[in-house]
Amino acid sequence: MSKQQLPIMNSVDVEEACCAPLVCEPLSESEAALLAPLFKSIGDPVRLRLLSLIACHEGGEVCVCDLTAAFDLTAPTISHHLKVLKQAGLIDSERRGTWVYYWLNPGVLERLSMILGPRVTAAAAS
Amino acid sequence: MSKQQLPIMNSVDVEEACCAPLVCEPLSESEAALLAPLFKSIGDPVRLRLLSLIACHEGGEVCVCDLTAAFDLTAPTISHHLKVLKQAGLIDSERRGTWVYYWLNPGVLERLSMILGPRVTAAAAS
Repeated sequence: MSKQQLPIMNSVDVEEACCAPLVCEPLSESEAALLAPLFKSIGDPVRLRLLSLIACHEGGEVCVCDLTAAFDLTAPTISHHLKVLKQAGLIDSERRGTWVYYWLNPGVLERLSMILGPRVTAAAAS
Repeated sequence: MSKQQLPIMNSVDVEEACCAPLVCEPLSESEAALLAPLFKSIGDPVRLRLLSLIACHEGGEVCVCDLTAAFDLTAPTISHHLKVLKQAGLIDSERRGTWVYYWLNPGVLERLSMILGPRVTAAAAS
């Protein structure tokens, strides 16, 4: 158990916190500077498909050989796009023998999803 | 009222669709081609801040004069960035007298949020 005391929330509280935020704070300049490159990295159709192939792959990780097979592009082109996604912090990888394996850094995508999500709800409810 | 018929969904359907996806389907080539330009349009810190300022503004719409005042940039630069967001379909606008007013197209942001969200949950659960 952590020494930190967690606030007591029942399921109704959680639902409300998730779907009807009371506060909508515009992004600061520094937050926007950190987040924009992440959105930019998925602002390309090949990288967006690569990310969704990795996200949806059984077991949560994919061999670069399977990713390359899904596109009509050369292996170096796929590797370049994967490098961009990795540099942005959206995915991580490890070489095992001949092949490199890729997986999502789920926390990062969740943050991007939340950045786009609750703000809309707040605006629509105002 | 629009003539288009919306699918009937009760609140339970909506909650299930939102929070516990059973299927994680990788994006098709055509879906990725449609979505990538939207992410690209917010892959810029100024546009990301503009979008969050519009999303969080009381009443749901903002005068371009208030948006320009929030940045240390010229009015034509802000207008250019707003045009990119509008062309991507993230925001809409209307001129009223001297000023142009901007508001979110909430459905679009919600879709982007869901594209990034459920896939993570599905991948983490696999």
